[in-house]
Amino acid sequence: MEPIETDVTAIARVIFSEKVPFNHLLGLEVLEVHPDRARFGFSMRDELVGNFMTRILHGGVISAVLDALGGMVAFLGVLQRLEAENADFDTKLARFARLATIDLRVDYLRPGAGQRFVASGQALRTGRRICVVRTDLHNDRGDHIAAGTSTYVVG
Amino acid sequence: MEPIETDVTAIARVIFSEKVPFNHLLGLEVLEVHPDRARFGFSMRDELVGNFMTRILHGGVISAVLDALGGMVAFLGVLQRLEAENADFDTKLARFARLATIDLRVDYLRPGAGQRFVASGQALRTGRRICVVRTDLHNDRGDHIAAGTSTYVVG
Amino acid sequence: MEPIETDVTAIARVIFSEKVPFNHLLGLEVLEVHPDRARFGFSMRDELVGNFMTRILHGGVISAVLDALGGMVAFLGVLQRLEAENADFDTKLARFARLATIDLRVDYLRPGAGQRFVASGQALRTGRRICVVRTDLHNDRGDHIAAGTSTYVVG
Amino acid sequence: MEPIETDVTAIARVIFSEKVPFNHLLGLEVLEVHPDRARFGFSMRDELVGNFMTRILHGGVISAVLDALGGMVAFLGVLQRLEAENADFDTKLARFARLATIDLRVDYLRPGAGQRFVASGQALRTGRRICVVRTDLHNDRGDHIAAGTSTYVVG
Repeated sequence: MEPIETDVTAIARVIFSEKVPFNHLLGLEVLEVHPDRARFGFSMRDELVGNFMTRILHGGVISAVLDALGGMVAFLGVLQRLEAENADFDTKLARFARLATIDLRVDYLRPGAGQRFVASGQALRTGRRICVVRTDLHNDRGDHIAAGTSTYVVG
Repeated sequence: MEPIETDVTAIARVIFSEKVPFNHLLGLEVLEVHPDRARFGFSMRDELVGNFMTRILHGGVISAVLDALGGMVAFLGVLQRLEAENADFDTKLARFARLATIDLRVDYLRPGAGQRFVASGQALRTGRRICVVRTDLHNDRGDHIAAGTSTYVVG
Repeated sequence: MEPIETDVTAIARVIFSEKVPFNHLLGLEVLEVHPDRARFGFSMRDELVGNFMTRILHGGVISAVLDALGGMVAFLGVLQRLEAENADFDTKLARFARLATIDLRVDYLRPGAGQRFVASGQALRTGRRICVVRTDLHNDRGDHIAAGTSTYVVG
Repeated sequence: MEPIETDVTAIARVIFSEKVPFNHLLGLEVLEVHPDRARFGFSMRDELVGNFMTRILHGGVISAVLDALGGMVAFLGVLQRLEAENADFDTKLARFARLATIDLRVDYLRPGAGQRFVASGQALRTGRRICVVRTDLHNDRGDHIAAGTSTYVVG
């Protein structure tokens, strides 16, 4: 797993933080990547507020983060197959560009209050064509803010 | 309907565009409001890109827009009851602050390509406690980009 | 459209009513089929009750009907391609056996009261690999009981 | 927990197996109940088949089971509050009759093959008005067949 993860981490940082403008705007940081799961972190900022009175996260920020994370987890499965085939970086980038979200469900469990948030995602099924990912968002007090499920075309 | 709609439009512009920082960042414009439906418009910008190669909308932008629109449609039902009770502006604002998304589903039908997008939402059911809204996103060529369903606590 | 629809209707009746035991148990009748939409009907029976006090439909009956209908609509797209290729009945049956639901969302809008129900489904997108269908359930008084969205692997 | 669970188990058996005709038809057995989670079991039968060629579970059976289980878990939270208030059995039954599913999402991960299935559900959030439950279905080989999320009005 070592070489795969190290490469995935490097690619993940490039692709998810630098090559996707909206992820950059959300301030997403790749905290951890594993063959079938990953964790992202981000901090509260004025621009991400959805409720001017209670100053909690906008629901759209939450769904955007969980979708981005789910896409990342789905891509990890693709990346491992490409590694096994010794694919080069451009091939990986091209494959990433073909990755697409089919659908997304987000359950908003508690108000998105806090200064720092961690999103964790786990593949429920990694197929050749479709990948299903379960995601969760917690704040710095450990409150379970939101739960998501999303599906991706990976083939 | 005239007085309700005029007031709703005014409140909608204030609340959705100015008082919600993330909606401002998305560049959402309130195009149309009716007692049980509404339309938002927004334009492509570099920050909203999700795929650096194909330059289409980030899935998170789409889910954020559909959630914001669904919340608006849900709030219209609340607003009409408050109008009937002659509630003042502060009461309306306070009630808006209590509105919360329960959950959201988005189906990504086609790539979010285009310069200009219109999101339309229609209440499927407006209850005293829960409101269910169906939403759709189209681009300037009339392509159906995404379909959503979301539920809100309004009581 | 005539030849396609006639054939689709015939195949639909065989496959959906006779070859799928659970659809038979639900008492589903194919009312109408078109290239990208269809309608099913069914009647209230004691076995379908979910609430012994109010005698309304079980939520699971509703989700089962909407999933079966969505699968039918997804299959209509497949069937049209197979028609164009002059595929025989066994090829169609084999292709139907490969059709699978990816996921399903159902919103329960109003209690499932009534003696007779009609479910209608419309393809939102018919791709070579994935089909997305929007469905609705109404009772004999025209009440909108439930709304669904489901995705299918068709390729 | 002892007294609560014992009572919950008894009520669960009565309500979910006997008082809900469709659950009876599915052959649902209450295996385990805890304050915020529960497990149901059921066996393959000819009537539950969705695919006459591969003889796997109908997707509608799966969604029905996960919805019934989610409703059970949601009701457990209600039941505990009613226990604390020393409510009688009729009050509990009446409260159960008011429980309603708001919406349901099911992801079909693998074909529903097997002779025996176990569904497990866990409350993600138990509020005074709304309860969110995450559910999973496994077969007797431990395959993860389906994953669900559903929300209920409990207040």
